[in-house]
Amino acid sequence: MTDDAKPGLSRRGLFGLAGAGVVGAGIGFGVDRVLTPEASTSGAAGVYPFFGENQAGIVTPAQDRLHFASFDVSDISRNELQELLEDWSYAANRMTSGLGAGEFGPADGPYDSPPDDTGEALDLPPAGLTITFGFGPGLFDERFGLGGKRPEALIDLPHFPGDALIDGLVGGDLCIQACSDDPQIAVHAIRNLSRIAFGRAKLRWSQLGFGRTSSTTRAQVTPRNLFGFKDGTANLRAEDTNVGKEIWAQNGDGPAWMTGGSYLVSRKIRMTIETWDRTSLREQERVIGRNKGEGAPLSGGTEFTEPDFAVTGRADAPLIDETAHVRLAHPETNSGATMLRRGYNFVDGNDDLGRLNAGLFFICFQRDPRTQFVPVQLSLARNDAMNEYVRHVGSGIFAVPPGATSDRPIGAGLFG
Amino acid sequence: MTDDAKPGLSRRGLFGLAGAGVVGAGIGFGVDRVLTPEASTSGAAGVYPFFGENQAGIVTPAQDRLHFASFDVSDISRNELQELLEDWSYAANRMTSGLGAGEFGPADGPYDSPPDDTGEALDLPPAGLTITFGFGPGLFDERFGLGGKRPEALIDLPHFPGDALIDGLVGGDLCIQACSDDPQIAVHAIRNLSRIAFGRAKLRWSQLGFGRTSSTTRAQVTPRNLFGFKDGTANLRAEDTNVGKEIWAQNGDGPAWMTGGSYLVSRKIRMTIETWDRTSLREQERVIGRNKGEGAPLSGGTEFTEPDFAVTGRADAPLIDETAHVRLAHPETNSGATMLRRGYNFVDGNDDLGRLNAGLFFICFQRDPRTQFVPVQLSLARNDAMNEYVRHVGSGIFAVPPGATSDRPIGAGLFG
Repeated sequence: MTDDAKPGLSRRGLFGLAGAGVVGAGIGFGVDRVLTPEASTSGAAGVYPFFGENQAGIVTPAQDRLHFASFDVSDISRNELQELLEDWSYAANRMTSGLGAGEFGPADGPYDSPPDDTGEALDLPPAGLTITFGFGPGLFDERFGLGGKRPEALIDLPHFPGDALIDGLVGGDLCIQACSDDPQIAVHAIRNLSRIAFGRAKLRWSQLGFGRTSSTTRAQVTPRNLFGFKDGTANLRAEDTNVGKEIWAQNGDGPAWMTGGSYLVSRKIRMTIETWDRTSLREQERVIGRNKGEGAPLSGGTEFTEPDFAVTGRADAPLIDETAHVRLAHPETNSGATMLRRGYNFVDGNDDLGRLNAGLFFICFQRDPRTQFVPVQLSLARNDAMNEYVRHVGSGIFAVPPGATSDRPIGAGLFG
Repeated sequence: MTDDAKPGLSRRGLFGLAGAGVVGAGIGFGVDRVLTPEASTSGAAGVYPFFGENQAGIVTPAQDRLHFASFDVSDISRNELQELLEDWSYAANRMTSGLGAGEFGPADGPYDSPPDDTGEALDLPPAGLTITFGFGPGLFDERFGLGGKRPEALIDLPHFPGDALIDGLVGGDLCIQACSDDPQIAVHAIRNLSRIAFGRAKLRWSQLGFGRTSSTTRAQVTPRNLFGFKDGTANLRAEDTNVGKEIWAQNGDGPAWMTGGSYLVSRKIRMTIETWDRTSLREQERVIGRNKGEGAPLSGGTEFTEPDFAVTGRADAPLIDETAHVRLAHPETNSGATMLRRGYNFVDGNDDLGRLNAGLFFICFQRDPRTQFVPVQLSLARNDAMNEYVRHVGSGIFAVPPGATSDRPIGAGLFG
């Protein structure tokens, strides 16, 4: 592609210039590309290193806000794809460290070029920003010669009973999950990464999430989803001894380039909240299998008491209904299958009938969706009492490669 | 209307029951309606009283997040409209105080009825929640016998040059502005007020805003809009000595029921940020009339230096361009006209071309839009250099009545 197609970045030789400025300190990406040396090691509050064995934004304590984006790669070469991932890694490392996306702050010009950062985060701390990249099945078609690199675990998701998917909300060649406690920071990250991708990849769909619906560490209070119930009480957490083997692809699982990576499944789940809001409390609690106030399982106890699916009440009916969400989603019902959930509440305005377009943007991470998300979702899609109140309208699956290091950008293993 | 059309609230006689429970303490709305006595006087951090001479959410320090909703009133009677405003006042007073929308928390419920609060804010503080109600021109047609009450200042907005309004994003009989530092709290408020309105009014359009773009007190740092520039540096603030006479309808201005009220104009302004992002820093600063880094006027000084529109540079060209936004929006250029701005950044996903559907949801308050918003916007619409990068797609004007008190719900003056 010509330089004109990537205005503002390649014109000034982004990595080349950055390398010139910090040549003694940086570690090269190939010959002339470096990541900024001041980045990722500060340990300052609200800064999570971009570099590491695994990508951040997975076991990182779930931040409050989300901007998620899926991209289609344009008609570019394999080398240009590799450069895009380098440019993204460079900018992601800067932004998660609290810097602008590019080397040149707007205050310093050059005045006759566009600024290398859009500016809306100039005065703000990163607020726990993490930027997590993933590769969709489409990246492994014939375009980039990557067919042989596709992990078997990166399946095409099956059709689930009741799916009401909308074409424009499904799939994508690349994804970026930006999470921060400040939504302006998450938006700034996606906006600048989209800008950097101009001419090379374009937004397919995107989603803002205003409130986390999962905790990923024991220290976090369980949040509530838009059904008004606590969500993710039984979620896998960073402290769990089995978390590593449940979410990280291990040596021998598949291609070596994915070792230390994970698999992300996203589902945009619209809730028909107006119907839900006219449903009795008894029915709401039957559907979930927990009480609404405290989040305790209907078999008794408090929020963190393990549900007892065998306990029965009147007429020998189980206290936790046979079709309750908590029963069907529980590892005990799914041969022990578990995953790390990291979803967000969303409201996208309202429809023509005056109903809020609201729901849950579900995200989960796992070692292998074939034995984790897929069987659980098949069971839920068939029997979950909650299906009356939800509709899956969007879907995505992405291989999340291991973390970048100062000399290996995201996805470097794909091109080795 | 029948009780069945207002499930969950009128079935249990919301105000009647609340009155019964607190009969010694409450002050009646008419015979059997009261606002909860524990509300609105706590002074706790993050609680702004709902009751007062003026409505909250105007000079209140601008909170970080917004959920704004416009409603069409259904085919109901004048009495039912009055009841809706009473029900909304009751719930708004509770929610701004940190209580649920209704008297019955789900944990205590009658289990066979829907809960009177949807639950997603159960564990959260109000985080500065304000709920501000307004009446659109449509409320003053023949339906409710309110034609004679319409203030002359509640004009139908003129067509502005360049307007690209979308039908579904314009107007409305009623509006609610919910602001909070926690978006889940703002969403909870609009969701519950919509639920309470079921069968009586339905959502016409609604808007989430993730980041404030204005300061309304001197203590607040100037935030940035999605052009990356500081916004609202010259905004009217609560501390300004003239703020009262600029924003509150005064005795003799119009109908007595509006004294202490204000007029709200909203504009959904989509920014073509992809075009903006490819524009040179020089052009960006010329358009705004301030520098991007600090927000100082191009005539010199620092952020809060008054712009000097007469200063010229090379070839006697003014340092602040003749078409710069800061010049055209400045009171000096508009016969002293000013207003209190309270807008928010928004991102509503992306369009089919992969462009972020992003921009500024502009809100302003004033004593009389005929001498404040309208002439300023006419001048901007004709000449503002920024027009190349923005498109006004939504619009609304609402009379914001004075505040409620414990015995007068919002809009009581309309029905006197």
